[in-house]
Amino acid sequence: MNIDVIISASDIKPGKLKNRIVVVIDVLRATTVMITALSNGCEKVIPVKEIEEAIEVARRDRSRYLLGGERKGLKIENFDFSNSPLDYTSEVVEGKTLVMTTSNGTRAIKNSEEAERIFIAAMINGRAVARKLVELNEDITFINAGTNGEFSIDDFITSGYIISCIKDLKAGACTLTDIAITSEYIYKNNTNIISFAENALHYNRLKALGYDEDLRYCLTKDTVDIVPEYKSGEIEVW
Amino acid sequence: MNIDVIISASDIKPGKLKNRIVVVIDVLRATTVMITALSNGCEKVIPVKEIEEAIEVARRDRSRYLLGGERKGLKIENFDFSNSPLDYTSEVVEGKTLVMTTSNGTRAIKNSEEAERIFIAAMINGRAVARKLVELNEDITFINAGTNGEFSIDDFITSGYIISCIKDLKAGACTLTDIAITSEYIYKNNTNIISFAENALHYNRLKALGYDEDLRYCLTKDTVDIVPEYKSGEIEVW
Repeated sequence: MNIDVIISASDIKPGKLKNRIVVVIDVLRATTVMITALSNGCEKVIPVKEIEEAIEVARRDRSRYLLGGERKGLKIENFDFSNSPLDYTSEVVEGKTLVMTTSNGTRAIKNSEEAERIFIAAMINGRAVARKLVELNEDITFINAGTNGEFSIDDFITSGYIISCIKDLKAGACTLTDIAITSEYIYKNNTNIISFAENALHYNRLKALGYDEDLRYCLTKDTVDIVPEYKSGEIEVW
Repeated sequence: MNIDVIISASDIKPGKLKNRIVVVIDVLRATTVMITALSNGCEKVIPVKEIEEAIEVARRDRSRYLLGGERKGLKIENFDFSNSPLDYTSEVVEGKTLVMTTSNGTRAIKNSEEAERIFIAAMINGRAVARKLVELNEDITFINAGTNGEFSIDDFITSGYIISCIKDLKAGACTLTDIAITSEYIYKNNTNIISFAENALHYNRLKALGYDEDLRYCLTKDTVDIVPEYKSGEIEVW
């Protein structure tokens, strides 16, 4: 099993993901939202790149589709929910379909479409994802969504956590690229996560916006046991 | 002063280097070779992308031009020297012009041409480069050449070393991007360098080829005090 990491959605190069299992991470907060919603009974998540596209889809049936996401960290006008995972309680998501557009996470998923399979990961389901990957035993590329096309420490430490779980769970050897080694190293030296995440520009931007509770929730390990997968435009626990 | 790091020559995006001071690092071994040759009395280094181009330039005057470089870590047929810095002694380089082509380093320099200024760095001149950058006090992007278009730990720890020197030397604050923070962190936690470089695929490839002495030389800090600069196709201490 060969493990690689791509450090931002804008660094995905054509051909690089072919025949690979891809794991998309946007821990603050898009993939954490998706996992939370699905875990709370949401039927599926439809990630789209543009706001207009999201509104278009939701217009088909406003009783079924929820609109969620953000631009610059804030709720989008006329959307039902922001990009806070705490919005997506069972009461509001049960049986619904969430149409979502965010600055980085949904773009990372869409840019990964040439991969063989695409899983959705965050800290909250890190160990469950690792278990799934060990079971599949194929080559893996972690896609860190990053922030505005740039490397983001929060995603990098999350891929490091999942790599570390894979190595715990797996009997045979894994081959890590240099960037995967570095990602795991950062996690291993900061297993409480927050100490290193506090260096992250994106973390601090969200903190400045008053999202302390979100940050705590997003950076807590293994509170959820599902592994959503993106297939033909939809994310579900298939 | 804003400090950023680009993790491989193939991740340089159009427009990103405009108006910035760029520092190119290919510590194993292209930039270490260039700095060593210039420090030993070589007049200038001409980096070119292709072998044919290098031969073309050298053909003008074989008594003046030396041909150096590598493909896959090995000396190129009919070239005078390989990519080992130990080849470039005063005896052979004094007063000469070195025409050089390598897999990663020369490409990183050529891909950086839109920058305002381009400096050549390695571990051996790390502190001298930091001093120069503090004096200029402008925004900086470190370009890690990487290995075959991929992130390479050896270059990443070198940019981390120079960032750490800048912070030591500079009175005012620097703003680091997340990737620059991570680069400095890796160095600060591995100040002896070798302990972390031993994880690097490229380091181990060179070790397997028997280049132990090269590795020791390349990863020793501050043995040289010059800061070469690339201008109009040539690298010199201007």
